[in-house]
Amino acid sequence: MSDNQAYALKSVSGGVATLTLNRGDKFNPLSEEMLAALQSELDAVKADDAVRVVVLAAAGKAFCAGHDLKQMRAEPSEEYYKKLFNQCSKVMLTIQQMPQPVIARVQGIATAAGCQLVSMCDLAVAAKEAKFAVSGVNYGLFCSTPSVGLSRNVSRKQAMEMLLTGEFIDAETARERGLVNRVVAAEELDTEIGKLTASILAKPAVAIAMGKQLFYKQLEMGIGAAYQLAGQTMACNMMDEAALEGVQAFIEKRKPAWSK
Amino acid sequence: MSDNQAYALKSVSGGVATLTLNRGDKFNPLSEEMLAALQSELDAVKADDAVRVVVLAAAGKAFCAGHDLKQMRAEPSEEYYKKLFNQCSKVMLTIQQMPQPVIARVQGIATAAGCQLVSMCDLAVAAKEAKFAVSGVNYGLFCSTPSVGLSRNVSRKQAMEMLLTGEFIDAETARERGLVNRVVAAEELDTEIGKLTASILAKPAVAIAMGKQLFYKQLEMGIGAAYQLAGQTMACNMMDEAALEGVQAFIEKRKPAWSK
Amino acid sequence: MSDNQAYALKSVSGGVATLTLNRGDKFNPLSEEMLAALQSELDAVKADDAVRVVVLAAAGKAFCAGHDLKQMRAEPSEEYYKKLFNQCSKVMLTIQQMPQPVIARVQGIATAAGCQLVSMCDLAVAAKEAKFAVSGVNYGLFCSTPSVGLSRNVSRKQAMEMLLTGEFIDAETARERGLVNRVVAAEELDTEIGKLTASILAKPAVAIAMGKQLFYKQLEMGIGAAYQLAGQTMACNMMDEAALEGVQAFIEKRKPAWSK
Repeated sequence: MSDNQAYALKSVSGGVATLTLNRGDKFNPLSEEMLAALQSELDAVKADDAVRVVVLAAAGKAFCAGHDLKQMRAEPSEEYYKKLFNQCSKVMLTIQQMPQPVIARVQGIATAAGCQLVSMCDLAVAAKEAKFAVSGVNYGLFCSTPSVGLSRNVSRKQAMEMLLTGEFIDAETARERGLVNRVVAAEELDTEIGKLTASILAKPAVAIAMGKQLFYKQLEMGIGAAYQLAGQTMACNMMDEAALEGVQAFIEKRKPAWSK
Repeated sequence: MSDNQAYALKSVSGGVATLTLNRGDKFNPLSEEMLAALQSELDAVKADDAVRVVVLAAAGKAFCAGHDLKQMRAEPSEEYYKKLFNQCSKVMLTIQQMPQPVIARVQGIATAAGCQLVSMCDLAVAAKEAKFAVSGVNYGLFCSTPSVGLSRNVSRKQAMEMLLTGEFIDAETARERGLVNRVVAAEELDTEIGKLTASILAKPAVAIAMGKQLFYKQLEMGIGAAYQLAGQTMACNMMDEAALEGVQAFIEKRKPAWSK
Repeated sequence: MSDNQAYALKSVSGGVATLTLNRGDKFNPLSEEMLAALQSELDAVKADDAVRVVVLAAAGKAFCAGHDLKQMRAEPSEEYYKKLFNQCSKVMLTIQQMPQPVIARVQGIATAAGCQLVSMCDLAVAAKEAKFAVSGVNYGLFCSTPSVGLSRNVSRKQAMEMLLTGEFIDAETARERGLVNRVVAAEELDTEIGKLTASILAKPAVAIAMGKQLFYKQLEMGIGAAYQLAGQTMACNMMDEAALEGVQAFIEKRKPAWSK
């Protein structure tokens, strides 16, 4: 794979944007260049009304092996590292903050910041062969930034075990614990993700955008304030023409006539 | 079922109040009237020392299908919706704030705000046939208020999948994920709930009231502040005559002589 | 066992400190004396660079039966109880705040504050025979302080069921829910814990100390602030010579040359 190729490929089809990490021969490390490419593609997609759902995929055998350690090691300065982790955190937070749902398509191993990437997607579908680890501790770099996402997916003792030992868990364990939603044979990955994207495409974009934003906001609030904000969101959502038509159609036992 | 019948039935027996959603023919929608009836019954129960535990049940085949969409659709104004969701959130928060434990008896489907109702009870027992969904997104109304309760019961990716797809999960899946405590055959629902109510009735009301209140408060605190408040609660609980007698009885290896 | 024996035994071998609750004949109650002994040992260990990981074990059949009820009952004053629970909470928080990972070795029942002790350890390995309950409610004393740790390990309905009923769950259920990491036959407890301690010993202390501290801090933050702090921690960790050597060794496909 040539260095002239794009770090992240984008293809859009029927409202689904697929972003593919495109350094499969190197296990798709999150180098500065890869993070910049991802940020750029996510920023473009989040402003694009034609895109209703995003699939985050990866070329090659591995999903993502985390940071580019060679690149990191070449510039040993605290300022550089702070800038790098800020860049990476921004990509991670963009996934959560963008209006469209993002589905991780995990065909192979996801380690360190690669595991973090899976944890920050709204949904994740993994192949049976996929494996997950936060393995930085193996070379003396505790996966602190990955722990932010991981600990918001799985219980704290399970997260701590992965962080302290650096050991892998398999896809089925990841599903049981809440890190991925579904596990299928590798050859059925696209079919399974197709079911999820079709389901999301069948709903109005505005409802999903409002709901996704509210979901992550209310998680950080006390329950009283969470209900306050959620009630306002529901009222606002209900006044949208898509909901008015959807509810009317439900009452009349017909399909809603939605433009999108 | 006539419109003259009460929206919520109450029966009290041996310290257990059973509140039954009583529009089974309509899948017990949370109409303004139903919410008002529930609020009224919950307010009465929470002030009633004779009631030690509450069972929230439902008439008919479904547990609760969420909001009354016909009624909602008839008055399309943001002010009206805000008022309605406030009314609904107040009912939900009352369940959590009242001194008695509330057990959901889920005999059939629980969707949207019906699923939320289950999520907000302290405990839930479901029949094998029960199913759960937050399906508002199917008609363009993302289940934002239900997401507040749901995301405090199950992991975030599992919640997101339900919210984005509107799909059902079965009772056993709900149990594995933490939305319900126990799943039994429909004909054993009352027996199983009877075990829980008997267990709760055997304990002093004051300890349970203090403990329930502390439990939900400390969940919203940092762990240092949580321990501070919990320690004060324990000290206060221990000074109560029921605990002094209970601990004394434990030391003397006899049953506590509790008036209630 | 004589009252002259130490309440908590300490043995250190190859970087692993084992603290053993040493009132096995009384089910290792957390009396004032036991809490003082634990605090003293934990304080010594946390300042001891030679200790890289702590195993919290117990003598006799039970792991820990919670507070010493006889001692508590003998001094019925709110001030005394507040002091006692403060003393206990300080021990619990010390486990979480100390730089070394703490692994609970749960060979038997862990009830009330004994269950809390397990919940507050970073990792826990249980024998098949181990059982867990927060049973204070059985004698009128709701397990409020244990609920702080328990509710940060298992989902809230599961925690509430244990707190309201006082019933036991077995080791396998505790593992499924997130209260313990691994369950093995009693005779394999030490072997299994040995795998975890060996794994931790193979990593640099400084990375683990930074990562553990960050992990619990970020859990209490909003995700934006969490990433901010985690990024700074990673940058700082990466500048440490252990990480610089570890990453260099990874690049050169050799073992890191770490002094510790």
